[in-house]
Amino acid sequence: MGSDVRLDLQSLRQAYIAGKLAPTQVVEQVYERIERYSDPAVWIYLAPPAESLARAAHLETRDLAALPLYGIPFAIKDNIDWAGVPTTAGCPAFAYVPVVSATVVAKLEAAGAIPIGKTNLDQFATGLVGTRSPYGICRNPWHPEYIPGGSSSGSAVAVAAGLVSFSLGTDTAGSGRVPAALNGIVGLKPTRGYLSTRGVVPAVRSLDCVSIFAQTVGDAQAVFQAAAGFDPEDPFSRRPAPPPALPPTTVRLGVPPLEQLDFMGNQAAAQNYQAAVQRFADIGAQVVTVDIQPFLAAGELLYEGAWLAERTAAVGDFLVQDHPGLDPTVRQIILAGREISGVQVFRDMYRLQALQRETEAQWERMDLLLLPTIGTAYRVQEVLAQPVELNRRLGRYTNFVNLLDLCALALPSGFQPDGLPTGVTLIAPAWHEEQLCAWGERYQALLASEERWTVQNLGCR
Amino acid sequence: MGSDVRLDLQSLRQAYIAGKLAPTQVVEQVYERIERYSDPAVWIYLAPPAESLARAAHLETRDLAALPLYGIPFAIKDNIDWAGVPTTAGCPAFAYVPVVSATVVAKLEAAGAIPIGKTNLDQFATGLVGTRSPYGICRNPWHPEYIPGGSSSGSAVAVAAGLVSFSLGTDTAGSGRVPAALNGIVGLKPTRGYLSTRGVVPAVRSLDCVSIFAQTVGDAQAVFQAAAGFDPEDPFSRRPAPPPALPPTTVRLGVPPLEQLDFMGNQAAAQNYQAAVQRFADIGAQVVTVDIQPFLAAGELLYEGAWLAERTAAVGDFLVQDHPGLDPTVRQIILAGREISGVQVFRDMYRLQALQRETEAQWERMDLLLLPTIGTAYRVQEVLAQPVELNRRLGRYTNFVNLLDLCALALPSGFQPDGLPTGVTLIAPAWHEEQLCAWGERYQALLASEERWTVQNLGCR
Repeated sequence: MGSDVRLDLQSLRQAYIAGKLAPTQVVEQVYERIERYSDPAVWIYLAPPAESLARAAHLETRDLAALPLYGIPFAIKDNIDWAGVPTTAGCPAFAYVPVVSATVVAKLEAAGAIPIGKTNLDQFATGLVGTRSPYGICRNPWHPEYIPGGSSSGSAVAVAAGLVSFSLGTDTAGSGRVPAALNGIVGLKPTRGYLSTRGVVPAVRSLDCVSIFAQTVGDAQAVFQAAAGFDPEDPFSRRPAPPPALPPTTVRLGVPPLEQLDFMGNQAAAQNYQAAVQRFADIGAQVVTVDIQPFLAAGELLYEGAWLAERTAAVGDFLVQDHPGLDPTVRQIILAGREISGVQVFRDMYRLQALQRETEAQWERMDLLLLPTIGTAYRVQEVLAQPVELNRRLGRYTNFVNLLDLCALALPSGFQPDGLPTGVTLIAPAWHEEQLCAWGERYQALLASEERWTVQNLGCR
Repeated sequence: MGSDVRLDLQSLRQAYIAGKLAPTQVVEQVYERIERYSDPAVWIYLAPPAESLARAAHLETRDLAALPLYGIPFAIKDNIDWAGVPTTAGCPAFAYVPVVSATVVAKLEAAGAIPIGKTNLDQFATGLVGTRSPYGICRNPWHPEYIPGGSSSGSAVAVAAGLVSFSLGTDTAGSGRVPAALNGIVGLKPTRGYLSTRGVVPAVRSLDCVSIFAQTVGDAQAVFQAAAGFDPEDPFSRRPAPPPALPPTTVRLGVPPLEQLDFMGNQAAAQNYQAAVQRFADIGAQVVTVDIQPFLAAGELLYEGAWLAERTAAVGDFLVQDHPGLDPTVRQIILAGREISGVQVFRDMYRLQALQRETEAQWERMDLLLLPTIGTAYRVQEVLAQPVELNRRLGRYTNFVNLLDLCALALPSGFQPDGLPTGVTLIAPAWHEEQLCAWGERYQALLASEERWTVQNLGCR
């Protein structure tokens, strides 16, 4: 076995079933790639190879047929507990060693997946940039001048660079989608409470979701299915209420009118968005124009009102004292929530409730909503110069999703002339993951058939 | 027609259909009774008789068959808008004259019901006592030394005294149930969002419910059905999700162990509660013991944490200035919410979420929960001496219901030796109103067959 091994779930499983490959070989290959890729900012903790090999060897004694993720290597964002290994949340002074794994990690391990390490992130998952970490800034694998996106920077890069098959992120404001766009991969942000958040360091606890990065929609969906499930130990876990299956042949795809789209001058991003709309039309979607103003207005509440106080509720007490390695921007944002009164929290919640009602009127006209994942991408130097403002712009199309109880699937949409990928996000009401994935998969199949994409894609690995 | 006319819905409708009675005659009778009853503290506003007679006369030109509440006189708690008539919320300085009626009032009028007036309440619906109003304290119709209960004091008394067929209350902490117990009538507190709260002065807006007082469960249910319906103009309105109908022959009725019941030394209340449990067993309920500690703990959050800030969000700005007629206790309670931080709001919401999870485990073991509505009743003088503490005790078995998204039906359970009624409340998860009413109706039929109840009941009118 050489470096040509493909890490997607189907290829690995076929090779395992055929006896052409064993988990220990894949683990060896993973460590080789990690060494070769040589970006120390991707990982905050990497399991010693001997330990991962021992896990793989133990798997080889078990029944492949009973393990849907048998021998699949994955990475864990370092705000999600993995038993016996430090959880830092991107802040060394905050680190603790959990005794039990987060529910999602435990479920994935139980399904046969092999954790390889803990990945870098914007400190306390506060940011969409990937530059707010004392563990360094991961290199964007497509273009070194650009940010990797955050907060799940290391997890997205680990998948984009082909180091693991999939990775876990978290997503409150868009941390499971923005890095997917910037890394040319898929990011599935499930409905709040569909994946347990027990064992996840809270950012905005009532909104936090565990998310999944993968190369393909099919892989993300398979991981999602293994990770999902009601968790009685997580007060925010919910019992799923999936809708009746819709006829898969057509869907009403909402897109905003041109004047509601802002690509901040990025022509390539605008063109790639229109191309994505066209792809959905080509596979049978009926495109309808919808008003996204109430969605955008809801998104603005996330960093300007009540939910800032929820960030303070999570780690504010820790941040009152200055610790080594604190990111000053993150600290400033989270401590600002101390100024928010209880009265304002309720007033903002009323405002959100009213906006939610307005968005419901739009949902009556569409089944899925397609938006750019980000308007435009920024370079590391730009973000370091304007850390708050550019972060804010990155969240324009993502911030509202959890506030409005929606689920989302970030998909690649092509490339800019400079080689950086662009992305779009398919959004649906709560519990519509199956519909998101069904249409995302057809879209991705069409995208993969386009020559330029394939060439670029191979060029990176 | 004389004073022997019965105002229950079935009697009135039968008389209307038979042509033995006309709405104008009933309205005349209602005003006669109001005059005879002569408690000026029941009403804050009484429609001029000529206006109500004109409404009744107009109704007589319409099709009875199309109007489920044809010619049914009712009272409106004065924190619910009735177009063209002042809404005071129990505070003259706050009064305004709404141009449109609250959605529920409009729906009841559209169904043929005739509003007679606006009733007294604890100011801003803040209280369970009925003593916190500059419009006076309604006399408890069963025993003048006792409080009428609140905050919907006038609405409960108007029904108990036989002045109207039914009345609207509101219920945040128990204002639709505590006065039902103290007045020996039925109080239906529907699931949050089942009845629109558009046009209702908010108390704790995310929890507020419109409630219904009536002499019988059947009447309350008929009014509920006419008043219910999704209201797109109310952001807190919800689309009902009633459960599949259960076999009506048996039900698992949860009751707490003896050590979790506190009747504050009232032996008669304790005996009447046990008698109510026995009545449910007699009509086929399977009695199971459940732990109500997490319910009680959730209830304690209502006046001690986050939701106090929601009261401040509602009318705090108005109360900052001192106005004539402000109740000092109400003002003190509502302004205390200014001290609550946004961070505390979220922490209390997390606590509630965790408690909700604990209560779900209890709901797996029961279909309905039966509790005393109040532990014991207090005299007016006692409440005036200890306005906060005795109010708190009255909410022990009611405060948690809206926080935990439950619905409830307050039912009479008998009398104390001094003639004051006692009550029990049947509680169910959201959207189980039909089940509540089905069992409540059977319970009430059994209660009505008990001689002592009938005698007492007639004795009052």
